[in-house]
Amino acid sequence: MNSLDTLTQLSDELTTHKTQISTWFQGLQTQICTALEKADGKSKFQTDTWQREGGGGGTSRVIENGNLIEKGGVNFSAVFGESPERMLQLMKLEPADFFATGVSIVLHPKNPLVPIIHMNVRYFEMSNGMYWFGGGIDLTPHYIVEEDAKLFHQSLKEVCDKHHADYYPDFKKKADDYFFIPHRNETRGIGGIFFDHLKEQEGITKQDRWNFVREVGEAFAPIYTEIATKNNSLPFTEEHTQWQRLRRGRYVEFNLVNDRGTKFGLETNGRTESILMSLPPEANWQYAHQPKEGSEEAKTLALLKKGIDWV
Amino acid sequence: MNSLDTLTQLSDELTTHKTQISTWFQGLQTQICTALEKADGKSKFQTDTWQREGGGGGTSRVIENGNLIEKGGVNFSAVFGESPERMLQLMKLEPADFFATGVSIVLHPKNPLVPIIHMNVRYFEMSNGMYWFGGGIDLTPHYIVEEDAKLFHQSLKEVCDKHHADYYPDFKKKADDYFFIPHRNETRGIGGIFFDHLKEQEGITKQDRWNFVREVGEAFAPIYTEIATKNNSLPFTEEHTQWQRLRRGRYVEFNLVNDRGTKFGLETNGRTESILMSLPPEANWQYAHQPKEGSEEAKTLALLKKGIDWV
Repeated sequence: MNSLDTLTQLSDELTTHKTQISTWFQGLQTQICTALEKADGKSKFQTDTWQREGGGGGTSRVIENGNLIEKGGVNFSAVFGESPERMLQLMKLEPADFFATGVSIVLHPKNPLVPIIHMNVRYFEMSNGMYWFGGGIDLTPHYIVEEDAKLFHQSLKEVCDKHHADYYPDFKKKADDYFFIPHRNETRGIGGIFFDHLKEQEGITKQDRWNFVREVGEAFAPIYTEIATKNNSLPFTEEHTQWQRLRRGRYVEFNLVNDRGTKFGLETNGRTESILMSLPPEANWQYAHQPKEGSEEAKTLALLKKGIDWV
Repeated sequence: MNSLDTLTQLSDELTTHKTQISTWFQGLQTQICTALEKADGKSKFQTDTWQREGGGGGTSRVIENGNLIEKGGVNFSAVFGESPERMLQLMKLEPADFFATGVSIVLHPKNPLVPIIHMNVRYFEMSNGMYWFGGGIDLTPHYIVEEDAKLFHQSLKEVCDKHHADYYPDFKKKADDYFFIPHRNETRGIGGIFFDHLKEQEGITKQDRWNFVREVGEAFAPIYTEIATKNNSLPFTEEHTQWQRLRRGRYVEFNLVNDRGTKFGLETNGRTESILMSLPPEANWQYAHQPKEGSEEAKTLALLKKGIDWV
């Protein structure tokens, strides 16, 4: 190994060190909040910092009653310490200290013609050397607009393709499978990408994985603000809002019944208010609701299925 | 055994036969719906009958936009057949055919000063002879009124005391433990009674258990209509309604995260619309909401804990 290689390796070790990763995530949180405040034009994020008893803590940033966002959260956390018993059990791990850091976002827009969005990027490390990256972005339009769905997936595909030809098809399928509500037999929205347990492997370094995760994080604000801003200027009716609230009900169902992250957070004694910031400001349930045949609502429902090639 | 004893035993065997039990439950559903329609004075229950692919079915009865009830369901079902794999797994049972019947109720009143109520009475039997009764009633006031809480618990205690001195203290504690939201560290409401796996034992016959379960079922309508009617005439404000919606949010959290019955139903491929009829018409979430010190809302929160002796 020549000295340049050694330097590169050293530099890689530094940039993928857990404290570097968490620092970068914290910066991402700020960057995204700034971009969202600009797009919103009215409300500002409130900041809530918290400490975790066993080690670490986080910053929850919440925006409410904006021009664009009715309720949204952009959370950063970096927690560590002795692994809780329940965590080891759920993750099937041997006892060791853990370190987990990441950024988690859910935005519920006011205008029903603007989609709900979720993003998560995270890094997990155990004191025995085990580590991985995970994350995903998925879009939940109350009304699916094919052009937006295509733009959304195309943008994610571009981020993926820069890193590996398998990423988009693989992570797109994982999103279809993950963001699915079995008891409704429908997907949460139009999916996106989902990945977990990304570590180094033949031909892919930890640095490569980290570069990918960072690009996913950086892609979030431009993609969402473009789709959101475009649709936020459209007029909407009370009927649209009623449908939005029913769809938010489904979002609640997915998050509380099916989302592994939420379940994991609640079961391992995570900070409830930060975990449940994903819930909408207002959600409705109506017994056996069925949209009218041929309506926009019915068209959206028909598209809530796995395996649609949006690109 | 003399002939009178034989006759009594024969009669007991008949009245506690699964088809007799399910028939009685179906009658209870009708009786309760009639009483609730009378108390409501405006809306009527809609009826939805359904068949289960593997055997049996049910009747879901739903009332919406009433004078008293904004959204409520009174469900009856009697399902049977080969035990689904997931059911055996969850219940830790050996493969055998099952039979399950019961009545399940959740009522969300319009007036925030009227409490949400839930009742369930059920019977479960396996083809290997194993059987048990289960059920419970619990009250979730948006605003706790001590006088009502006392009346509610006193009424349940009277039903219990007629059957066994241990029932009320035992089942009241079980309700405190069951209707509890760990991630919020609060009870769902003021509890009530909860029981499960009731079978014959030294000094208690199957008929005794069944008599108890029937009295619980019959107690529901008079207890609730008394408390509901009294409070439904009270005027309420938008502030009360806002608080009601936040409390309904907690109800959603309990039902989707913690309620074993809901989880069991969804995981064993039950009828989703009937299982989720328990969800409110409209629920809100607000990040880190805290009621004002000394307010009625704060007083209610302070009473959402286990172990309060309401009688």
